[in-house]
Amino acid sequence: MSLTRRVFLQRVAQIGGYSAAFSAMHALGLTPASGASPLPELAADFGKGKKVVILGAGIAGLTSALELMKAGFECTILEARDRPGGRSWSVRDGSTVEFIDGTKQACSWSDGGYLNAGPARIPSIHTHLLDYCQKLGVPLEVEVNFSRSALMQSPKINGGKPVLERQVVHDTRGYIAELLSKAVNKHALDEDLTAAEQAQMLEFLAGFGDLDDGKYTGTSRAGYVSNRGAGPHKSTLNKPLALKELLAADFSKGEFYEEQIDWQATMFQPVGGMDRIPYGFAKALPEGMIQYSSPVTEIKTASNGVTVAYTQGGATKTVSGDFCICTMPIPVLAKTKNNFSAATQAAFSGMPMTALYKVAWESPRFWETENRIYGGISFLKDAVDLVWYPSAKMFAPTGVLVAGFNSEREDVGGLGMGGTNTFKPTAFGALPTMEAKFAASRQAVETLHPGKGQLLTKPIYIQWSNIPYSIGCFANNHLKSSDPAYAQLEAAEGRTYFAGDHLSHLVGWQEGAVLSAHHAIERIAAGMKG
Amino acid sequence: MSLTRRVFLQRVAQIGGYSAAFSAMHALGLTPASGASPLPELAADFGKGKKVVILGAGIAGLTSALELMKAGFECTILEARDRPGGRSWSVRDGSTVEFIDGTKQACSWSDGGYLNAGPARIPSIHTHLLDYCQKLGVPLEVEVNFSRSALMQSPKINGGKPVLERQVVHDTRGYIAELLSKAVNKHALDEDLTAAEQAQMLEFLAGFGDLDDGKYTGTSRAGYVSNRGAGPHKSTLNKPLALKELLAADFSKGEFYEEQIDWQATMFQPVGGMDRIPYGFAKALPEGMIQYSSPVTEIKTASNGVTVAYTQGGATKTVSGDFCICTMPIPVLAKTKNNFSAATQAAFSGMPMTALYKVAWESPRFWETENRIYGGISFLKDAVDLVWYPSAKMFAPTGVLVAGFNSEREDVGGLGMGGTNTFKPTAFGALPTMEAKFAASRQAVETLHPGKGQLLTKPIYIQWSNIPYSIGCFANNHLKSSDPAYAQLEAAEGRTYFAGDHLSHLVGWQEGAVLSAHHAIERIAAGMKG
Repeated sequence: MSLTRRVFLQRVAQIGGYSAAFSAMHALGLTPASGASPLPELAADFGKGKKVVILGAGIAGLTSALELMKAGFECTILEARDRPGGRSWSVRDGSTVEFIDGTKQACSWSDGGYLNAGPARIPSIHTHLLDYCQKLGVPLEVEVNFSRSALMQSPKINGGKPVLERQVVHDTRGYIAELLSKAVNKHALDEDLTAAEQAQMLEFLAGFGDLDDGKYTGTSRAGYVSNRGAGPHKSTLNKPLALKELLAADFSKGEFYEEQIDWQATMFQPVGGMDRIPYGFAKALPEGMIQYSSPVTEIKTASNGVTVAYTQGGATKTVSGDFCICTMPIPVLAKTKNNFSAATQAAFSGMPMTALYKVAWESPRFWETENRIYGGISFLKDAVDLVWYPSAKMFAPTGVLVAGFNSEREDVGGLGMGGTNTFKPTAFGALPTMEAKFAASRQAVETLHPGKGQLLTKPIYIQWSNIPYSIGCFANNHLKSSDPAYAQLEAAEGRTYFAGDHLSHLVGWQEGAVLSAHHAIERIAAGMKG
Repeated sequence: MSLTRRVFLQRVAQIGGYSAAFSAMHALGLTPASGASPLPELAADFGKGKKVVILGAGIAGLTSALELMKAGFECTILEARDRPGGRSWSVRDGSTVEFIDGTKQACSWSDGGYLNAGPARIPSIHTHLLDYCQKLGVPLEVEVNFSRSALMQSPKINGGKPVLERQVVHDTRGYIAELLSKAVNKHALDEDLTAAEQAQMLEFLAGFGDLDDGKYTGTSRAGYVSNRGAGPHKSTLNKPLALKELLAADFSKGEFYEEQIDWQATMFQPVGGMDRIPYGFAKALPEGMIQYSSPVTEIKTASNGVTVAYTQGGATKTVSGDFCICTMPIPVLAKTKNNFSAATQAAFSGMPMTALYKVAWESPRFWETENRIYGGISFLKDAVDLVWYPSAKMFAPTGVLVAGFNSEREDVGGLGMGGTNTFKPTAFGALPTMEAKFAASRQAVETLHPGKGQLLTKPIYIQWSNIPYSIGCFANNHLKSSDPAYAQLEAAEGRTYFAGDHLSHLVGWQEGAVLSAHHAIERIAAGMKG
C-alpha cells in the first residue's frame, strides 16, 4: 500500500471509525474476496421496480434484505417475533422466555449478564459474518473457547474428583508419545518410516510428550501441585494421571472439542450479546422494512410473483412481491398454509430438528476467583456434561454460567457433539420436569466445584423444541436421510426461494444463514438475467 | 454466598467499580489464598517508624512499596528512568528508544498501537499479578497466544510455501494416531496395554487423529481448500501434508509453543499496554514516593541500616533507611559502588543475562483482512523465526506487528524458546547492523505473506542487552551454573535484601517479580519479629 493510501485510510478511520475505514479499504480493493460467497455483484439499480417479500428476520432474512436493498430491490420482511434475530437471541435482564407449552420464565440477571440462547461463537473462518459485523459497526471481543485451567471429571479417574484440563491433555500426550516411541524403537513401524524418519519422529515425540529419555514422567505443561515461588520456594509438578484411568474416563469430547474446525481459536463474540448482530442489521435497514409481530399465515407462490398473508395486531393482511425469500424454519412451514408442490411440503418434514438446550444461571464468579478459569468449558460425565464459563465481562462480580448445553435427544451425530444418530432422549432429555433439569444443572456445577452449586440463582432454561416460531434448534442436514429434503428445498417454488442455515453446509451457524441468503440472491439474479 | 452479601457486592460494584468490589470480596474472605505467596499478614502499624529504601521502580520495587506502605513502613523508591515499570515498558507514539551505544529511535505509530518491549502476556496462573491488576483497576483483555489460522513455513514442506497451523497440528495428530493404532494392532505394545486398554486406546486414537478405519486421510480440523457453502456449494478438504515433509520441516517450536505452562490459554494483556500495570501501581503510591531520573551511585549496607547515594538533576544526594530492597538488575549492580561481600559481588556476574530482542512495525492489518489471522503467532525457519500478531484493537486499520522475538545469543536453553545453552550469536544476532536486522524482519513477513513486506513502516528494534539500566533482558537462572549466584543473592547483605524476577523460579515474568517482593517483605518481617 502506498503511503498516500495509508494516510487516506487513517484519516477515514479518524473521521468515520473502523467501519468507514473498512468500506474504504474494500473500495480500494484491499480486502480479499472472502472465500466462497456466491453473492453476485449487482448494479445499484439492478432490482429497480422489483419487490421482494422476505419471510423471517433472522440472519438469513436480514442479510437478504441488506444485499437486495443495495441492488435496488424494494423489500419487506415479515417477522413473527417482536425482535430481529430469530435464534440469534440474547436473553438478559428484562427478557421473557416463553415456551410453546405456556411456560414462562422472566430473566433478571445483574451486571449486564446475558445468555446467547442460540449461536454464541464466531470462528475466524466465518468470514462473511465477521465482515458484516465490521460493516455494521458491531464491536467484537475474543470468545475464549477453552481454558487449560478448566476441569474434567469422571467417576473413573482421580477417585471421582475433578482434574485439570491441562493434566488430561498433557498426560495423554505424554503417554501417546511414550508408547509411539516404544513402538518405533521396537521396529514395529519399520514398514512405515525410514530409519531417518524414525529418528526425526523420536525427536519430535520427545518434545510432543515432554519425554524424559523416552518415558513420560510428568511435565510442567500439566501444572503444579505447589507453584513456582521466589527465593527458595520451588515447585512440585502435578503427579501424572494414570493412563489406565485416562483411558477408562474417556475425556474425548472435552479433549477434541476445541479442535473442531468451527471451534478453533481465534473465536469472537459481539460485545454485549449475539443479538447485537441482528440489531445492527435492523438499524441499517429503513424504518418499517421489518414488520414485527407479523406471523405468516399463508404463502401463495406463482410463476410471476408471490402473495403472503400474515396477521398483525389481530388483523390479517397480505403483501405481494415479485419474489419471496423464505427463511422460516421447516417445522413452522410444515404448519403454514401454502400452495407448494407435494414434494416440497414433504421436504418440510424431511430433516429432523435438533433438540438442543441450554441452562444458565447468575452466579458470583467463583470459577475466576478460586479456580482461575477465565472462559472455556469444563466437562463431566453426567446428565449435564459441560459447564461453560462466560468470556464476557471477565473479573466482574457476577457472571452468567451455562451449566448444560447439548441435545435432549440422541440425534446430533456428525456435529461433533458426541451424540449418535438415534432419537432416544438423552439422560438430560429424560428428566421429567424443568425443576429436575435445573437440579441436574446445579449438580453438575456442584460436582465440578464442590460447595458452589448453592451459589447459583435465577436459572433460565432454553429448550429449543419448545420455542415458538423455531420448534427445534436447527434442521439436521448432516444426516444421510436428510439429503432428499435438502435437494428438494434447493429448487425454487415458483418465485419463492428457500434460505436459512439449514440449506447450507454450515447448519446451526450464522455463517450458513449468510451464505444461504447470498445463494438465494444469486438465484434470483440469475433468473432475472436469464 | 448469602443474598445479602451478593446484593452488597453488587452495590459496591455499582458505586465503586470492579476494583472496589474486588476489595470488598477480599474483605469478606471470598477470594482464596492465591497459591504460593510468602507475603505475611502484617498489622497496619507493623512497620511504624521504619524506613525502607527501594532500588528500582519495576514490578518488584512497586510491589514492595505498596505492601510495605500498607504495613506502616515509610518508603522511598529510587528509579534511574523517568518512568515506572523497568522492562514492563510499552513503546508507543512519542516514545524514544535509546541504546547504550547512543542509537536513538523515535516511535510515531498510529491508532494507539504499541509494543510491549518486555513482558507482553499474563497467563491465568500468574494469580498474584492478576490480583494486583484488579486491585489497581487495570483493565485486562484476552491475549490470543495462538491462532489455528496462523502460518508455518519451512523450505522443506509444501515447496517452501507457508502452510496453515491447523494443517500442521492436525495432520501431525492424524499421522501419530494412525502410527500408534498400527503399532497396537501389530501387538507391539502388548506388554504396555491390556487387551481392554488397547481397545480403549484405538477408540481414543480414532478421535484424536480423526481416523478413517485406522488410517489418516485428512480431516475438517485441518481446514478447507474451498469452504463450505450454501445449497449445492460443498467443500473440499485441504490435502494432508506429507508426513515425510512434516518430519523434515520440524515445526516443533510452533507446535509446542502454545502449551508451555506460562503460555497456555487463557492469557491476558492490559488494555493499552503492559505499562498500564506499573502506572497503576505508581498511581496507588503517594506523590513523591518514587524519585524518578535518580540513578543509584553507591549502596552502603550495614547491620543496622542502609545508605544509598544517587544523582538527581546533576546533584548527588543520599537517602538512608532501616532496610533496603534492591531490585536493580545484576549487571547494573556489578557496576555500582557498594560495600557488599566479595561473594555477593561475584554473584552479580554469576547468572548470564539473556539477550532477547523484539522488532516491531506499524502495518495495515493484512493478516486480518486477508489471512483472517486474529492474534497468535506464525513461525518460520529463518533468522527471524516468528511473527506475532497483535491482540490489541483487532479490526483496526493498522496494528503493530512483532516480526522477530527471540534471543541474539544461543543462551536461552530451558526457556522453551528453542535455543541451546551456548553463547554463540544466533543467525539474527550475527547480523551486522540494525538495517540488516530490519531487513531480516521484513523478509520474514514477506516469506509468510508474499507481497506484504513492503507495507511495513516505522520499525522499532528493542535490543535488551543495549538498553541502559537493564543491560540484558533477564538473568538466566535456569542454568545449572547459575545456582551458586542465585543462592548467594538469597542471603541479605546487612539490611539489604535482593529482589526481582531473577530471584524467583519465574524469571522473565512479572509474577516472579511480585513473588520476590513478597519474599523480601517476608524476610524483613521475620527479622523484625525475630
